[in-house]
Amino acid sequence: VSSSRDEFDLIACIRTRAGKRDDVLLGIGDDAAILRMRAGHDLVVSTDALNAGVHFPDDTAPFDIGWKSLAVNLSDLAAMGAEPAWCTLNLSLPNADAAWLDAFLDGFLALATQHRVALVGGDTTRGPLSSAVTAHGFVPHDEALRRSSAKVGDEIWVSGTLGDAAGALRQWRDGAAMDTHLRECLDRPTPRVALGLALRSIANACIDVSDGLLADLGHVLDESRVGAQLELDSLPSSTALTTAFDAATRRELQLGGGDDYELCFTAPSARANDVIAAETSAGVTATRIGRVESKPGLRLREADGGVREAKRSGYVHFDAKDGI
Amino acid sequence: VSSSRDEFDLIACIRTRAGKRDDVLLGIGDDAAILRMRAGHDLVVSTDALNAGVHFPDDTAPFDIGWKSLAVNLSDLAAMGAEPAWCTLNLSLPNADAAWLDAFLDGFLALATQHRVALVGGDTTRGPLSSAVTAHGFVPHDEALRRSSAKVGDEIWVSGTLGDAAGALRQWRDGAAMDTHLRECLDRPTPRVALGLALRSIANACIDVSDGLLADLGHVLDESRVGAQLELDSLPSSTALTTAFDAATRRELQLGGGDDYELCFTAPSARANDVIAAETSAGVTATRIGRVESKPGLRLREADGGVREAKRSGYVHFDAKDGI
Repeated sequence: VSSSRDEFDLIACIRTRAGKRDDVLLGIGDDAAILRMRAGHDLVVSTDALNAGVHFPDDTAPFDIGWKSLAVNLSDLAAMGAEPAWCTLNLSLPNADAAWLDAFLDGFLALATQHRVALVGGDTTRGPLSSAVTAHGFVPHDEALRRSSAKVGDEIWVSGTLGDAAGALRQWRDGAAMDTHLRECLDRPTPRVALGLALRSIANACIDVSDGLLADLGHVLDESRVGAQLELDSLPSSTALTTAFDAATRRELQLGGGDDYELCFTAPSARANDVIAAETSAGVTATRIGRVESKPGLRLREADGGVREAKRSGYVHFDAKDGI
Repeated sequence: VSSSRDEFDLIACIRTRAGKRDDVLLGIGDDAAILRMRAGHDLVVSTDALNAGVHFPDDTAPFDIGWKSLAVNLSDLAAMGAEPAWCTLNLSLPNADAAWLDAFLDGFLALATQHRVALVGGDTTRGPLSSAVTAHGFVPHDEALRRSSAKVGDEIWVSGTLGDAAGALRQWRDGAAMDTHLRECLDRPTPRVALGLALRSIANACIDVSDGLLADLGHVLDESRVGAQLELDSLPSSTALTTAFDAATRRELQLGGGDDYELCFTAPSARANDVIAAETSAGVTATRIGRVESKPGLRLREADGGVREAKRSGYVHFDAKDGI
């Protein structure tokens, strides 16, 4: 198999399905794409790669790998309050399998179409399965949401539910049957793009929860030089998660799991009604889970009033070498 | 080894060395970068990944892998006549090796600094060695160079010399000692950024020669719906290539080899003096190698006047699975 010939075939296949936008002056097919920026806006750029055996189980369907490759990047744009526009794709494949690629593109482009994102460039290489996406979006000058601007007194919110994807991974590692809803959360996360846009003039700080709530909220607190207290009983849980795990495991998954791709943001308490209007317009729930404090560190408050300091631990990705 | 903790360490290491530009409003450290576009310009975006064992021999030094990862993308921007500005990096590493990463960044950033390119985002993942870069540049509205606009009667030019990198690979495959100059051409290609900028108002069409002259000029001809004749004796050769190979092998490497990263462009014959001024100002030679014709196809003319039709064959990358 010649890498080169395969590469051309695969790129041709991708090119015919890449989608169109008026601001794509030249898409796939030259040395580079030519893109027209929107006046009055800044460019927001995010990039993340998914590797087989590290970021998803090997049995993940190609549709889902395609979907998730884009979703994790749109989630980063959402956390900035950016409107997605364009993306590029570096796809490494063990062999040139047209059916696999078609299914991958089905997933990738299903999500791209939802968000009017055009695929404007990329390359395919023979190698271990890996998909790196760079996503581009717009944000009006000086309106981007950042991690670093949480204010003392802000309420802390999180969209959707926490721990579902981590629950699926836990079942998978335990050799248990995976709950359908949890598995879907793991394989096809929903980037909260509309919510990010709606929060632009409301939230003080925002991050997407990809490495687990404690780790990601920790970044917000560190960068903002503040602390916080979380109300553990308020952490939103899906029925599926509550059904599948005991309370202690569920809490562990909600705090330390990863792959949630929900938005965690802070907003002045006076803006709570605006947050509620934003979540409603975006079609996603948001839940108040705590408050920003001047005292450094992150404290977890139990329903009985007990408070303990959180241990910060990043999410450890699925890892084939761990022998699981 | 936890992927997550490694990832944070590596990103911190990259972050401190990423370089600055006034138009980078927010670089590495949030969910995405925020970048200020230049007024009156379009955004040009290119992406290419290099995989160990496919795009470079396994014994390639980390400095060179870093350099080349960026170089191949700046070469694409050069072919569009774009001025480089920002890049992102997806790095997959078998293990978290700080010394290796430092050397990789030395090479990557040596080239980035030359071209004032800021590294604004990226991620690191544990996996087989692979480096994907997305490069961003500016071009004034409607001034980008394209493949598709070669005109009948244009002269065909190529910068630098051809076949050097392919010559190094050939020596490597043959188990011969690699010539130092040829190996350097393979490992540290020079993107012709200044030449691309200088050609913006002169050339009708431009491409970078990454897959071999015949393949890449073929793209220009196909997209422009024209043909061409090349004068084989005019193909520029380095002294090292001429010394290392017989005439037939040298010609094969110049026509079909890859990894040249020279610019192949077409310009009206009336602009020849402007091309010469452009190459001089850019500090690189350019050589006239043929002419665009209305008759489809690509003809190769020998010094004795004999003409034959070129076989189009893409460059086959170095490939560990070929058992070499």
